[in-house]
Amino acid sequence: MSKAVVLLSGGLDSATCCAVAKSDGFEIVALSFCYGQRHTVELAAARRVARAFGITEHRIAEIDLHAFGGALLSDATDVPKDRILQAEEADIPPTYVPARNTIFLAYAIGWAEVLSCGDIYIGVNAVDYSGYPDCRPEYIEAFQKTANLATKAAIEGRSLTIHTPLINLSKAGIIRLGSDLGVDYGITHSCYDPSTDGLACGRCDSCLLRKRGFAEAGVVDPTTYQQS
Amino acid sequence: MSKAVVLLSGGLDSATCCAVAKSDGFEIVALSFCYGQRHTVELAAARRVARAFGITEHRIAEIDLHAFGGALLSDATDVPKDRILQAEEADIPPTYVPARNTIFLAYAIGWAEVLSCGDIYIGVNAVDYSGYPDCRPEYIEAFQKTANLATKAAIEGRSLTIHTPLINLSKAGIIRLGSDLGVDYGITHSCYDPSTDGLACGRCDSCLLRKRGFAEAGVVDPTTYQQS
Repeated sequence: MSKAVVLLSGGLDSATCCAVAKSDGFEIVALSFCYGQRHTVELAAARRVARAFGITEHRIAEIDLHAFGGALLSDATDVPKDRILQAEEADIPPTYVPARNTIFLAYAIGWAEVLSCGDIYIGVNAVDYSGYPDCRPEYIEAFQKTANLATKAAIEGRSLTIHTPLINLSKAGIIRLGSDLGVDYGITHSCYDPSTDGLACGRCDSCLLRKRGFAEAGVVDPTTYQQS
Repeated sequence: MSKAVVLLSGGLDSATCCAVAKSDGFEIVALSFCYGQRHTVELAAARRVARAFGITEHRIAEIDLHAFGGALLSDATDVPKDRILQAEEADIPPTYVPARNTIFLAYAIGWAEVLSCGDIYIGVNAVDYSGYPDCRPEYIEAFQKTANLATKAAIEGRSLTIHTPLINLSKAGIIRLGSDLGVDYGITHSCYDPSTDGLACGRCDSCLLRKRGFAEAGVVDPTTYQQS
């Protein structure tokens, strides 16, 4: 069985990505990042998801993004609440972390090369996304081209594919897909600003998108929110 | 004066890059990485170079490459010695670290965005290089395209340029260029396998390329080697 590196944040998108990679026939190896994010509780969720999928190789790389700021870092500005959802907005929200997906994917291609594996899954989404530039199809395409020039594997003729199975789905579509594949969304975490005991705030962009997704998918949301 | 991010390893290439960025009229901000490399003594060299150029903003990002192995990491395999120089060889040497430049450049574009700066300098070289895939012009071009899709700045129409002033120079050419611009190569460090007190081994690929470069440039090599 071929291995695929799945970028695993512990959110509902990356959990769905695991389910898709598995149904595509891959043995999943998972890569998460500890980057000083405000919501380190998501790493606990990443571990739960890895366990649920029987993933034996799950690396958590410590990376240093403090130089770059952004509201998702624990010592930075406040996470915005109760906003109009970004899907309808053109602005890039303050939760944007510069170059985050480029950094994540760069590590993923490094690890993929070490494992001699040619497949990477990332749960980016260009529909119900949060306005991040590095979630767009044209960005992923360009990164894949770069990756196929960057490595020894590429020089030796083994190509690398960046799979983005969620890129054209709505949040509701992702939830329907994952539900069909048996994902337990109760173990995932989306909130940008959870309480110290890990409860989702219910009011940040990510919570609002998640709630709306479950509602539109007609699937019961297993999340306990501080405020509904 | 516009700022430019210069990737600064403390070696002779990146020191020359600083000199070029300065002569191009930029205020230099420098980015180095502590990645568990065997030659952490190079970080001391990076600090010396930063001081010599009067760089006030010099960040050293801690990154985690241990997952990926490679001989440049301090706990990995031996650094090869006394080999035929890679410039004449087609093989990629064991000192190759998968995806290293992609990771470095990913951080650089993140920091460039935070600083609202559109210029990055990296001292890659495709002539007297060590056979690394991520030092080739086609790789840099692809990365620049990716960078110009990855960031908020790109969406807002501010473009990013990856400058590679050394890419077509021989090591001798780099040394001549830097000497003309007043670089003090005595404070730089190239060796992959220095002694505990920081002396260059004189026998690894990097020392061999450095020695030959000075000889061909007709410039006195200020380096003290353990073995000449």
